[in-house]
Amino acid sequence: MGKQEIRYAARVDLDKEAYDQPQLHNRWHPDIPFAGTIKNNEVVKIECVDWTGGQIKNTDTADDIKNVDLTRVHYLSGPFEIENAEPGDVLLVEIQDVQPLQSQPWGFTGVFDASNGGGFLDEVYPHAAKAIWDFEGIFCSSRHIPGVRFAGLIHPGILGCAPSPQVLAEWNRREAELISASAHLGREVALPPQPKSVHAGSAGAELKERVGREGARTIPGRPEHGGNCDIKNLSRGSKVYLPVHVKGAKFSVGDLHFSQGDGEISFCGAIEMAGVITFKFTVMKNGMQELGMKSPIYIPGPVEPQFGPGRYIYFEGFSVDSAGKQHYLDATIAYRQTSLRCIEYLRRYGYNDYQIYLLLSCAPVQGHIAGIVDIPNACTTMGLPMDIFDFDISPGAPVKKLDLGACAFASS
Amino acid sequence: MGKQEIRYAARVDLDKEAYDQPQLHNRWHPDIPFAGTIKNNEVVKIECVDWTGGQIKNTDTADDIKNVDLTRVHYLSGPFEIENAEPGDVLLVEIQDVQPLQSQPWGFTGVFDASNGGGFLDEVYPHAAKAIWDFEGIFCSSRHIPGVRFAGLIHPGILGCAPSPQVLAEWNRREAELISASAHLGREVALPPQPKSVHAGSAGAELKERVGREGARTIPGRPEHGGNCDIKNLSRGSKVYLPVHVKGAKFSVGDLHFSQGDGEISFCGAIEMAGVITFKFTVMKNGMQELGMKSPIYIPGPVEPQFGPGRYIYFEGFSVDSAGKQHYLDATIAYRQTSLRCIEYLRRYGYNDYQIYLLLSCAPVQGHIAGIVDIPNACTTMGLPMDIFDFDISPGAPVKKLDLGACAFASS
Amino acid sequence: MGKQEIRYAARVDLDKEAYDQPQLHNRWHPDIPFAGTIKNNEVVKIECVDWTGGQIKNTDTADDIKNVDLTRVHYLSGPFEIENAEPGDVLLVEIQDVQPLQSQPWGFTGVFDASNGGGFLDEVYPHAAKAIWDFEGIFCSSRHIPGVRFAGLIHPGILGCAPSPQVLAEWNRREAELISASAHLGREVALPPQPKSVHAGSAGAELKERVGREGARTIPGRPEHGGNCDIKNLSRGSKVYLPVHVKGAKFSVGDLHFSQGDGEISFCGAIEMAGVITFKFTVMKNGMQELGMKSPIYIPGPVEPQFGPGRYIYFEGFSVDSAGKQHYLDATIAYRQTSLRCIEYLRRYGYNDYQIYLLLSCAPVQGHIAGIVDIPNACTTMGLPMDIFDFDISPGAPVKKLDLGACAFASS
Amino acid sequence: MGKQEIRYAARVDLDKEAYDQPQLHNRWHPDIPFAGTIKNNEVVKIECVDWTGGQIKNTDTADDIKNVDLTRVHYLSGPFEIENAEPGDVLLVEIQDVQPLQSQPWGFTGVFDASNGGGFLDEVYPHAAKAIWDFEGIFCSSRHIPGVRFAGLIHPGILGCAPSPQVLAEWNRREAELISASAHLGREVALPPQPKSVHAGSAGAELKERVGREGARTIPGRPEHGGNCDIKNLSRGSKVYLPVHVKGAKFSVGDLHFSQGDGEISFCGAIEMAGVITFKFTVMKNGMQELGMKSPIYIPGPVEPQFGPGRYIYFEGFSVDSAGKQHYLDATIAYRQTSLRCIEYLRRYGYNDYQIYLLLSCAPVQGHIAGIVDIPNACTTMGLPMDIFDFDISPGAPVKKLDLGACAFASS
Repeated sequence: MGKQEIRYAARVDLDKEAYDQPQLHNRWHPDIPFAGTIKNNEVVKIECVDWTGGQIKNTDTADDIKNVDLTRVHYLSGPFEIENAEPGDVLLVEIQDVQPLQSQPWGFTGVFDASNGGGFLDEVYPHAAKAIWDFEGIFCSSRHIPGVRFAGLIHPGILGCAPSPQVLAEWNRREAELISASAHLGREVALPPQPKSVHAGSAGAELKERVGREGARTIPGRPEHGGNCDIKNLSRGSKVYLPVHVKGAKFSVGDLHFSQGDGEISFCGAIEMAGVITFKFTVMKNGMQELGMKSPIYIPGPVEPQFGPGRYIYFEGFSVDSAGKQHYLDATIAYRQTSLRCIEYLRRYGYNDYQIYLLLSCAPVQGHIAGIVDIPNACTTMGLPMDIFDFDISPGAPVKKLDLGACAFASS
Repeated sequence: MGKQEIRYAARVDLDKEAYDQPQLHNRWHPDIPFAGTIKNNEVVKIECVDWTGGQIKNTDTADDIKNVDLTRVHYLSGPFEIENAEPGDVLLVEIQDVQPLQSQPWGFTGVFDASNGGGFLDEVYPHAAKAIWDFEGIFCSSRHIPGVRFAGLIHPGILGCAPSPQVLAEWNRREAELISASAHLGREVALPPQPKSVHAGSAGAELKERVGREGARTIPGRPEHGGNCDIKNLSRGSKVYLPVHVKGAKFSVGDLHFSQGDGEISFCGAIEMAGVITFKFTVMKNGMQELGMKSPIYIPGPVEPQFGPGRYIYFEGFSVDSAGKQHYLDATIAYRQTSLRCIEYLRRYGYNDYQIYLLLSCAPVQGHIAGIVDIPNACTTMGLPMDIFDFDISPGAPVKKLDLGACAFASS
Repeated sequence: MGKQEIRYAARVDLDKEAYDQPQLHNRWHPDIPFAGTIKNNEVVKIECVDWTGGQIKNTDTADDIKNVDLTRVHYLSGPFEIENAEPGDVLLVEIQDVQPLQSQPWGFTGVFDASNGGGFLDEVYPHAAKAIWDFEGIFCSSRHIPGVRFAGLIHPGILGCAPSPQVLAEWNRREAELISASAHLGREVALPPQPKSVHAGSAGAELKERVGREGARTIPGRPEHGGNCDIKNLSRGSKVYLPVHVKGAKFSVGDLHFSQGDGEISFCGAIEMAGVITFKFTVMKNGMQELGMKSPIYIPGPVEPQFGPGRYIYFEGFSVDSAGKQHYLDATIAYRQTSLRCIEYLRRYGYNDYQIYLLLSCAPVQGHIAGIVDIPNACTTMGLPMDIFDFDISPGAPVKKLDLGACAFASS
Repeated sequence: MGKQEIRYAARVDLDKEAYDQPQLHNRWHPDIPFAGTIKNNEVVKIECVDWTGGQIKNTDTADDIKNVDLTRVHYLSGPFEIENAEPGDVLLVEIQDVQPLQSQPWGFTGVFDASNGGGFLDEVYPHAAKAIWDFEGIFCSSRHIPGVRFAGLIHPGILGCAPSPQVLAEWNRREAELISASAHLGREVALPPQPKSVHAGSAGAELKERVGREGARTIPGRPEHGGNCDIKNLSRGSKVYLPVHVKGAKFSVGDLHFSQGDGEISFCGAIEMAGVITFKFTVMKNGMQELGMKSPIYIPGPVEPQFGPGRYIYFEGFSVDSAGKQHYLDATIAYRQTSLRCIEYLRRYGYNDYQIYLLLSCAPVQGHIAGIVDIPNACTTMGLPMDIFDFDISPGAPVKKLDLGACAFASS
C-alpha cells in the first residue's frame, strides 16, 4: 500500500517547437479537441512552456525580445476535459503547487519595443530590454538587476475554460467594435482573430483553419472566463472558481510566472518561465447561478511572501499626465504616474530606468486603487517592498550611488 | 520630573458650526493665515471635525445625506506653520495615533444622491443611503448593516501642505481645461473655485473673498501635494513625506476615517468621523530634490488588521462595461465591474445592494490593479476579507438567506 | 438620538495612594466586596493603576526599583459583579481597547535587585536597573535604551474571576506544600498569604483581616482562573474565556502593559503603566462544561504589530546550564540560555547587559518551545524583531560600536 | 549559454537500507569521513531519507511504530566538506527550498509506545499510534485525522556541523553525569554512545567501531552545534548560522519535516518524510567571535503560512501538574498542561485523544513561553490555528460531534 506519484496530464518538450506539440494551443475556441481527460476531484500535474514558447533565451542581449514573434505566443496546455462539467457549472481549481521545470531554473522579464508589443510606459521607454532571473529555491536574482533578490509568488498568468460559441461571438463583436471605433488613434487597441501561426492542438487542417478565423487571441483576459488575468496572488494554495461554458469545461492553463508585480507593467513583465502546476479539479454543479457569478473569483493561498506592512514604500500617482493634462478619474493614467514616481525614486541608487521598469513589472509590488471618487483625480498607489533590496532604500537612509550594471538591450 | 501630556495644536468644538471655528478652513490657498505654529521635531495632537462639518447625524434616515450641502465640506484643521520648513523641503509627518473623539464614538458612511454628489456606481445606485457605525474600541459595527464587524484601519483622508501661487495656478489651469473640454458630457467633472461657503480660517473679509475666487477645492487629491488622497493604509504608525511649497509649510489635515476600502467607492464612503491625530513633524531640508519627489510617498505603520492571505475572496473585473461595450485598458471601468461582481455575490445572504455598496466603501477591501497591459482589457481585483462577517461567506459554505435589515434611506 | 460615551465602571486617582482607593484590591479572595456591577453584554471602561501602585517614578535612578515594597503591588480594579454569571459559567471578556492614561504618557521596565524580587536571570544580573519609556501614539522609546523604538502590543497582565473558597483552599494547599518541600533551597519559591499591606477593597476591618490571612497573592497566574498570566498577545481585540467560580463572577483586572516580551524575563519586565481598558462582558451559561475548560482560553485580536517572518533573528537555547550541567528536558533552563545568547549577541553594538535584559523583557520578542522531546535537551528559541532597532542588526551587516548610553541604576 | 540544473551533493535510494548507503551516517563524530565536498558559495541539492530510514510504512496499523528500532534512526546525509571552513568560522547555510521526494508524496506522524521511545505525554497516552499524511502540493491531509488540512512549513529537523573531539568529550561527560545522577528515576534520561547499529558513512571497520564507542547520538540537539533542534520555522528561505568546530565543517542534515508544531510533542511528532533540500553554503571567517556565538542563530524565510493573529485559539497551561502538585517555574510541566488543555477542547468534535495528540505534534501550533517569572507558576500558551479545520472550532460556534474515524493503532 502507498500513495503513487501524481499523474501528469500533460508534459512539454523544451527541445521541440511549441507549435509542434499537440497538447498545446494558442487560441480560445470551443472546438479545439481535448488534450486529455481529468476526473472530477482528481489531482494532476500539468507542464507548461513559457508564454513565448521558448523564443527568449538566457543571453545578455535583448534582440530576442525586440524581434519576438507575437503571433506565436501564449501556448496553453490543454484543453482538458473535466468529467461531469457542463455549461452553468463552476469548475473549482485548486492550485496545489507551481514549480519551475528542474531542467530550466531560470526565467526572463522583458520590455518590448514600442513598435512590436510595447508596454504600459512605452511612450517613455520605447526600447527593448531584458533581464534574466536565476531561481535559487524559493528565491530569484538577476545578473541584469543586481542588488535585489526576492521570493517568488509563483502563479499561472492564464487559466480558464473555453468559451461557448455564443461567448466567443460576443468577444469578437465587442473587440471588433473597439477596433473600428479607434481607427483614428493609430495604435493597436485589440487583437482580432488572426489566421497566422494558429495552433489548435490536435485539430485537423479544416478545423485549424476555422479556429484561426474565429478563435479569440489569448492576450487579454476576459470577464466571462478569466483567461489571461495576470493576477499576482493567484498563487500556490489558491482556489479559483471558473465559469464553465462548454461540456467538459475545456480547461487550459499557461503563461507561468515566478513572480509578478501588480499591473505587470512592462507587458512581458512577470518573470516568465516554463514549469509544472499541480491542480485539483472539482465540479460545482449549477455553480454559476448559486454563486451569482459573471466573472471568476478566487481565494488566495496562505503562503505569500510576507514583508510586514511597515516594510513597504508607497508611491502615489494621480490622473494628471506627464504633460500636465488633467484626466477625469482615470485610474490607468494614475497608475502610470505612480509607476513613474517609483522609477524616479530608485534612480538615485544607480539603476538605469529600464532596470527599474523591469523590476517593477516582476517584483511583488502592491498596486492599489486608493481613491476613485474625488473628481477629477483618481489616485493609485504602488507599494515597493524594501526588503527585496540588498541595501537600505528607506527615505531616511543615506544614499550612495552604486555600480548596478545594466539590463540587456537590443543590439542596435 | 515626568513627561507632560502632549500639547493640542488645535481642538474643535462639535457644538459649534465648523464654519465659525477659525482653526479650520475649506480651501487650499497659500495665503490662508496660520492657525498655529509647530516646532521642528515636535509632537502635537490635532483635533478634526468630520468632513461634512457635522451635517450628518446619528439617525435612521438618509435625508441628511440626500440634502448635504457639498459646498460646506472638508473642513481642515490648520494651516499650521512648521518651523524651518521652506519650499523644496520635505515635511516628514509621522502619524503616531488617530482616535475618534471620546464624546462621539460613532461615524457614518453615505451614498450620495446622483443629483447631489453621486458616487462610483451612481448609474446603478442613484439614491441616497446611509449607515451609522458604532465604535467599540478598535472595532466598529452598524445597526444598518448587521452581520459585519471589523477593526478600524484608522487614518486621515486628507493631509498636505499648501500650494504655492504657481502650483495653485497650475491646478486651476488644468482643471478649468478639463471642465471646458467636457462640457458636452452633461456631468460635473471637476470643481472650480467657488466663492460660496468659503472658510479661510482667520482671514479677513478681503482675503477670504480672494481665497474664494482663487482657492482650490479640497475634493480631489493632487499630485503636487497629496491632499485628499484617501489612502486606506496611511494609518497609525505611518510616515508620510510631503513636498513643501510655501514658507512654514502650511500643513493641514482633516477628513478622518475610522476605516475605508480601496477606492472609497460610494464617495462619502469611508467611516467618516471627528477625531484627534497625534503627529510628529520633522523637516528634511532640500528633501524634494534628494528624494526625486514629485508626489508624496509614505511608509505604512506596522499595525494593520491582519486577516491572513487565505481569508479573502477576490473578485475580478475587466474593462468591458455593463452594456457589453469594450473599453481600452480602462482600469476605472474594470474596478467598477469588480465592485459590481462583489455586490452580486453578497446579495445571496440577504443584504440589499445599497448595504453592500456602503460596506465595500468602508470595510478594508483590497483593490488591486492586476493586469494593465493585455490589450484591450484592464483587469482589477477586489479582495473581501471573509472574517468581517459573522457567518461563513466562503464559496463552498451553505447559504441561508438571512434577515439583514436595511440601511437608512432618504424619506421619499 | 446618538450614542453616548462609554461608561466608566471604575476610575483611578493617580494623586492618591492605591491603598486608599476602594475600587482597588490586591488579593484574590471570594469575599472581597463588589466594586460595582456590570450588565451582561455591557461595554464599559475600567481604569487601572500601574502594578506597583505608583511606586516607580519617571527618573534616572533605579533606587525606587531597588527599594520597591513588593507587598504593595498588583492593585487590581474590581472585583466587578457581572450580572447573571454563576459558577460553571464562562465569562467571555472582549478587550475592545487598551490605552495609557492621557495624563501619564510613559511607563517603566525594571530589573529587581536579587535580594528584593529578583528575576529570570538574577544569578547573572543581580542589580536593580530601570528604563523609562515615553509613549508616542502607538510607539514607545526610552532615553535609557537608545536606538530602539516599537509599537506597543498593549494588554493587561492580569485578569480573572475570583476563586471559590474551594479553589482558594486548593491554591493555598499546593503552594504551601511547595514552600515546605523547598525549604532547603534557600530561595523564595512561592508567596503564601501575607497579612501585611492587604487591600481588600471596601471590606471592613474584620473581613480585611481574613482576606489577609486567607487571600491568594496576585503574583502567579493560576490554572483555575488565569490571573497574572502575562501573555503578551492577549491584547486589543482579544476575546478571553474565563471560568466563573463565584456568583457574580467577581472579575478583576490590572497590571497593564504597553508591551511585553514572551517570558517577561526581568520580572518587572513589561512596560508597566497605568491605563484604561474597554471591555465587553458576555456570560456563556454552563460554558465550562461545554468548552471542556479547566484553564482560560483566548483568541487574539487582529492588529498585532507585524514585522514579517523574515525580519526576526532567532536565538536557540538548550537545557545545559551556564556551568555546563546537563538538565533533563528543562524548558525553563533552555529559555534562560536562549535569553543569554541574545544578550551576548546585542552586546556588540554597545549596549550594556542590563539594557538588553530590560529590552528583551518588554520588546515583542517571540519565545517558543521548539523541541521538548529529544532527551535530554529541551530547545527553546527567542525571535528578536530587527525592525525595532534604528540600525541594522542582521548578522551579515557591518558592526560599529555605538554610544548607547545607559539604563538607570540604583545609587550605590 | 544557460544555467544548468543544480548539482546533487547526495542522493538517496529508498529501495535500499539506509544502513547500506555510504553518504549517510547516524552518529556525531569528528572522524566520520567526508561524504563529498561543497565549494564556498555553492548551491547544491541534498537528498535525505526519513528519520527512521524507512522503517515506517504507509499502512493503517501502528505496529511499525510500536516496534521501531530506535537504534537505527536519524540517518543524516553527510558529512560534507565545506571548502575553506575552519574551526571558529561560522557556516551560513541558506535553505533555499525543501521538497518531498516526487516518488514518495506522503509522510507520517507517530506516537511511540511508552516502553519504546515514549513522548511528551506518555504518562497519559502510553500506546503506539500513527497517522499517514498525503501531500497535495503545498498542503497535506490524513485519512487518519479527517477534518484537517494545512500547508506545510517544511524544514529539516536536524542540521549542524560535526563536533570537535573536545566538544564531543564535553557532550559525553555531561550526559553521562546526568544519567548517573538520574539512575533512581527508572526512566531513560539520555542516550549514551551505543555501539549497536552504528552507521559511520564510509568509515572502515576500525573507525566505525570507535565511532560507535565515542560518537554522540543524534536524538538531542546540543547548544554547541544545533543538531536536532526541531525548530518548526527553520524553513524555506531561512538563513542559519552554524558554529564550525572542525576543518571542512563536516556539515550534516536530515530528519526532514513537512510540518511540525512547537514542541513536536509526540516525539515522532512532525510529519516525517524523505526529501530534498536546496542549500547555499557560505563561510564567514572568524564568525563565532564576531557574532559572539555560542549556539546557532537563524533568520526565518518570508513565506510561512499566515493565518492572521485573530485566527488562533490559545490555550494556557501552568506549572501545576495533573495530580495537583505545584512545581516551581517549570515551563516543561506548564507546556504539558497546555497541551492537555487543547486535547480536552478538541475532544468535543469527535476526535479521539490520540488523533489530537498526533495533530498537535505536527500542525503549525504556536507554543509560547508566556510568563516565566511569577513564582511559582510558569505559564505557557499554545496557539491552535482554526483554519486548518474543515469545520468551525471557535468557542462560540455550535458543536456537533462528527464521525472522525481513528488514527492507526498497534495490533494488540
